[in-house]
Amino acid sequence: MQSANVEIVEVGPRDGLQNEKVIVPTAAKVAYIEALVAAGLRRVEAVSFVHPRLVPQMADAEDVMARVPRIPGVRYAGLVLNERGLDRALAAGVDEVNVVVVATETFSRRNQGMSVDDAVRGFGVIAERAHGAGLGVTLTVAAGFGCPFEGEVSPARVAELVRRCPGADEIAVADTIGVGVPADVRRVTAAVREVSRAPLRFHFHNTRNSGYANALTAWELGAAALDSSAGGIGGCPFAPAATGNIATEDLLYMLHRSGVATGIDLAATLSAAALIEERLGAPVPAQLGRAGTWPA
Amino acid sequence: MQSANVEIVEVGPRDGLQNEKVIVPTAAKVAYIEALVAAGLRRVEAVSFVHPRLVPQMADAEDVMARVPRIPGVRYAGLVLNERGLDRALAAGVDEVNVVVVATETFSRRNQGMSVDDAVRGFGVIAERAHGAGLGVTLTVAAGFGCPFEGEVSPARVAELVRRCPGADEIAVADTIGVGVPADVRRVTAAVREVSRAPLRFHFHNTRNSGYANALTAWELGAAALDSSAGGIGGCPFAPAATGNIATEDLLYMLHRSGVATGIDLAATLSAAALIEERLGAPVPAQLGRAGTWPA
Repeated sequence: MQSANVEIVEVGPRDGLQNEKVIVPTAAKVAYIEALVAAGLRRVEAVSFVHPRLVPQMADAEDVMARVPRIPGVRYAGLVLNERGLDRALAAGVDEVNVVVVATETFSRRNQGMSVDDAVRGFGVIAERAHGAGLGVTLTVAAGFGCPFEGEVSPARVAELVRRCPGADEIAVADTIGVGVPADVRRVTAAVREVSRAPLRFHFHNTRNSGYANALTAWELGAAALDSSAGGIGGCPFAPAATGNIATEDLLYMLHRSGVATGIDLAATLSAAALIEERLGAPVPAQLGRAGTWPA
Repeated sequence: MQSANVEIVEVGPRDGLQNEKVIVPTAAKVAYIEALVAAGLRRVEAVSFVHPRLVPQMADAEDVMARVPRIPGVRYAGLVLNERGLDRALAAGVDEVNVVVVATETFSRRNQGMSVDDAVRGFGVIAERAHGAGLGVTLTVAAGFGCPFEGEVSPARVAELVRRCPGADEIAVADTIGVGVPADVRRVTAAVREVSRAPLRFHFHNTRNSGYANALTAWELGAAALDSSAGGIGGCPFAPAATGNIATEDLLYMLHRSGVATGIDLAATLSAAALIEERLGAPVPAQLGRAGTWPA
């Protein structure tokens, strides 16, 4: 077991809200982000620069970025899929871009509207331009643990994509559909480490109740960063297949009791989750808010 | 990482149904147990022999035991707290008894109506009589990871109880209120191993989303058995603090994808969970039934 610290990347405002049916007003998004920053979160994936027709939940990305608290040490990321998204990200003043390449051809074409080859080429162009503008660049390999269309995704396939996309400051592997288990985390970590020395970040959903075990395993293996969303939002509670991100507060509970320092205040994170829960008007998947911190 | 197999103890009929508000008729309990056995579960904690006034959900323990399928290799356990319970267990024909001793004085007096010293003495008497009748004996240390009244429970305290209760065929440590994390599992495993060579079993609730990570850690540390309930029942979905057992199907998904052989059929376990979900009339906490097995 490793006792190193780990960075929490708060993705509730982006991946969380993007997958909720309710379209949250800009002011409420900003209040959620303010609460997260007040809780001590220092890295927030705040927005996505995709076409508003495809993801109406993120149509106000520029407005959100114009209003978030700019505090030394707090970095905001925006998700981008293409150069048009990068243009918007640069104009909106994000600190870093998260560039997504999907591991499988079918999912890439359906989700991003481009082939994997085109996505890899796009990554190179975006990374170069983003770096030129002084922004950090994350490569996210989506569907890195499995694809809804093509099934199993081998760690070798993920590693091959990482190899083809040099220049990222960080490699994130995303279990987009929540199918991975800790043994998969071990395999993909080993495979990616063979082709890249960049810090590793993981993005887990708790779709099949393996998300927290996956996160713990990633931390044990020395992952530099873990994604989570305050409230565990992102899986509509009334949808047939709830697929929220792992929840920041439940992850913090586990990490803090394991002796991991995160610099994040658990009670304040619960307040941020309560804020977005009230706004969404439905119970969030996170459990700590209901069960209570312990010992009291 | 360990690749050894692990025994799943199905506790849905006992710990699951005991904590549901709905009182399930005997025939439906038996149908649930039949479905579990058909799925390949070979060890089922089927009933509890506590006073019906305290736990009306288990008042029909004798009737349940009279009707469960008796198949070679399938063992049924009953929970007992005192000699009166043991008398009933012996008459009802269980294969093993699960004797509970609570780790803290306050919880012991409130929950079992006796001091820890009396519970320890009671364990000795019950174990001797049960062994004399050819039954297996499990010692469960309840509140082994924390107490709702006294707070933190040290691993040394758990180990001390185990030391004071020799004669168990198996030691189960129960996270009764769902507060433990994997680091706690490591600590309590190490402490108990210093005082006992009996096989270790763990009982986790997923109250704060750490239950599956705890189970995986216990398996990695060589635990012989893990408790779970098909459907993850036991925490009323509409209660403010849902505290179900970890779900058999979600645990199986993680274990099977990790290369662990359990001999249990996942699809048939999902059917058993669906059966009890329909009977309870509310969505169960288990996620695999909603998300779907994968790859399809």
